[in-house]
Amino acid sequence: MEPKKAVILLSGGLDSAVTFAFAKEHGYACYALTADYGQRHKIEIERAKEIAGVLGACAHKIVQVDLQAFGGSALTGAIPVPDARTTIGDDSEVPGTYVPARNTVLLSLGLAWAEVLHADAIFIGANYVDYSGYPDCRPEYLEAFQALAKLATKAGTGGQWELKIEAPLLKMSKSRIVKLGKELDLDLSLTSSCYNPDSQGTPCGKCEACVLRRKGFAEAGEDDPTVK
Amino acid sequence: MEPKKAVILLSGGLDSAVTFAFAKEHGYACYALTADYGQRHKIEIERAKEIAGVLGACAHKIVQVDLQAFGGSALTGAIPVPDARTTIGDDSEVPGTYVPARNTVLLSLGLAWAEVLHADAIFIGANYVDYSGYPDCRPEYLEAFQALAKLATKAGTGGQWELKIEAPLLKMSKSRIVKLGKELDLDLSLTSSCYNPDSQGTPCGKCEACVLRRKGFAEAGEDDPTVK
Repeated sequence: MEPKKAVILLSGGLDSAVTFAFAKEHGYACYALTADYGQRHKIEIERAKEIAGVLGACAHKIVQVDLQAFGGSALTGAIPVPDARTTIGDDSEVPGTYVPARNTVLLSLGLAWAEVLHADAIFIGANYVDYSGYPDCRPEYLEAFQALAKLATKAGTGGQWELKIEAPLLKMSKSRIVKLGKELDLDLSLTSSCYNPDSQGTPCGKCEACVLRRKGFAEAGEDDPTVK
Repeated sequence: MEPKKAVILLSGGLDSAVTFAFAKEHGYACYALTADYGQRHKIEIERAKEIAGVLGACAHKIVQVDLQAFGGSALTGAIPVPDARTTIGDDSEVPGTYVPARNTVLLSLGLAWAEVLHADAIFIGANYVDYSGYPDCRPEYLEAFQALAKLATKAGTGGQWELKIEAPLLKMSKSRIVKLGKELDLDLSLTSSCYNPDSQGTPCGKCEACVLRRKGFAEAGEDDPTVK
């Protein structure tokens, strides 16, 4: 029997790399998709290439899509990257690092490839616990996208193709994600989480992604190999 | 009172140009968005620029997004452009010119810009009558995208923003679209519909888009200014 196929949305960060390792562990043939969307933290893309190689992606596509054209986010250079909020996970506020419609664009690109591949699933490293301020990381959002995928595609409308949107980390704490990465033997030194690294890829230690990552490693009782 | 704002998905074809003119007529301040998605028919993009100029777009963004990376369609070069099908509008078959998930990708990009602009609507030239083989031109698909948009966005989740997906041509025949374009004083010579034009932009006359367009002009009793 042919293995199940999955498109993995791979940013090069901790969450997407652990998601990839998880999909692989569950027997999927993995096709990695990285978007070059004008992010400040280009080092992510280099890390994504290394991760795709180490985890044995069947293919790795890096697709240009210029979200910078629209502005509106600290991650595409429109406004400065803020330091971590004091109240992490505060539902009432969407962080400045939110990129308008990013997950919708990424999932759409994943959908295009998934349809061509006749893939069984798209895996996304969305996480609801630490990033509850991002609307497009919520379970109801992901369910709506899955419903859309069925209507949107040639294969889905024929009834012979069912695509799942899988977000295995959705309800995990960052420390649980770190532990899962270790359990799956993933080399976490390859992952880059910082929103504002220097030209060598050294994390700033101050942005929200750095603070969450460090807290996660600390609570998991692990050293973060990217922190010198 | 500030005018309503709309993002217009503008390909440079007949349908999207008429849609733009329609939105303008209905009082929207129009922001034109064209995707350079690796289509064979690049002339469309040049025409989109002219149309955006003539119709007075508040801004026109041409966003690179490499759908060619995924293959799977005649329109991105993976397979030859087929001649028109003998049974136009046959529901049972999706044409080879279908681009996987194209409308989902285009609407996602529109959503990103719409969120930054706080636009009231995204206008898309989707048409259900002549292109019933494209799953992402169906009314239920567009409704699903509108539901997704609300869940996907920072503004939508706050409840203070309601984005409409408007497809005014959805149920119009091609001849009705030609007539509407004339009623709106749109210069139809600026529009390009052919899937496989030559380097001068001259339509091939044989592909499905050409055949539908010619039939539409003929039924409307109009001469097509792009046909010499």
